[in-house]
Amino acid sequence: MSDPATIEKRASIGARRNPATHEAVLDAAEALLRESGLAGFSIEGVARRARAGKPTIYRWWPTKTQLLLDVYQRLKLNIRPPDTGTIEGDCLAFLVGLLGYWRQGPGQVFRSIFAEAQTDERAAEALRAYTADRRANTARIFERAKARGELRPDADAAVAAEIIAAFAWSRLLTGRLDADEAELRPVVQQMVRGMLA
Amino acid sequence: MSDPATIEKRASIGARRNPATHEAVLDAAEALLRESGLAGFSIEGVARRARAGKPTIYRWWPTKTQLLLDVYQRLKLNIRPPDTGTIEGDCLAFLVGLLGYWRQGPGQVFRSIFAEAQTDERAAEALRAYTADRRANTARIFERAKARGELRPDADAAVAAEIIAAFAWSRLLTGRLDADEAELRPVVQQMVRGMLA
Repeated sequence: MSDPATIEKRASIGARRNPATHEAVLDAAEALLRESGLAGFSIEGVARRARAGKPTIYRWWPTKTQLLLDVYQRLKLNIRPPDTGTIEGDCLAFLVGLLGYWRQGPGQVFRSIFAEAQTDERAAEALRAYTADRRANTARIFERAKARGELRPDADAAVAAEIIAAFAWSRLLTGRLDADEAELRPVVQQMVRGMLA
Repeated sequence: MSDPATIEKRASIGARRNPATHEAVLDAAEALLRESGLAGFSIEGVARRARAGKPTIYRWWPTKTQLLLDVYQRLKLNIRPPDTGTIEGDCLAFLVGLLGYWRQGPGQVFRSIFAEAQTDERAAEALRAYTADRRANTARIFERAKARGELRPDADAAVAAEIIAAFAWSRLLTGRLDADEAELRPVVQQMVRGMLA
């Protein structure tokens, strides 16, 4: 890796992300988060652990919040979007899966990101962009149900995605993650009934 | 007020709130918040302004968050719960009114309370109690609609109240308060349609 050709090549890509370093930073951030928690999480600590320069990290993740969001999102990628065949089943699996995932620890990361976003405008912008992206992803559950004729043609998938995500956040942000399927099923039924064909 | 009998009487009620001092503290807190913002808000500053002892304030409001919640709630009491005659009208008025109220400034107070509650367990407990109380209040909109036969008998007013409040919070906490009636009406329609009789 210290081959001069390699160094020249790296320098030539400028601000573009080097995939290996990019992953190393995310690995380091995730490990630091697991070991030291949010209180011990800093760009400096991540840089040291990843053997990367702080300016490099700041170029890719201008704020700590953006780095945390990427770590959080990478952890979440292991969760497959539900596809149970019915909108009620999908929405229930979505809520049960998300609350259960948050309970395991990542909920506290997401809570901290929300906290940061209430007083820091750059963190707020990062959270807004992230949640818009996730909302579009969640909307697919409803678009699929429309496509198979389960929902009314005028059901708004984006609005439905926002409503179910907002409900999940409200449980997270008020520390009420202990809801089980029996509690969540009537919530989901009330949410989707008006959209059914 | 420096009459010895009064002083004796005050002392005798112990930890019970003296209404005059109680109001003076809330007045001082509200004035300090308006003048100095959240950054300049402290129990010490409130005590100085209200000419009250810090121990007195802490006895009534063990955390800054609880005092902020009381100030925030007192400001909100001027907002009358909507009663337009239809559930769609009421829900729309609820969302339009709440987002508009938050835009005028108090939204930042509530955002700070949410932020505090993500890392401080006492603040979280205060927020949980406050939101449970407000949810019960919002549920009345749906109970009234059930009573007049507009909603299905099995519609769950508490769940409906939680869903609409969660939606409003999600707009507040991601800094998306600029929604107008035209944007909110289809959201409300999708929320309530499944509950209609």
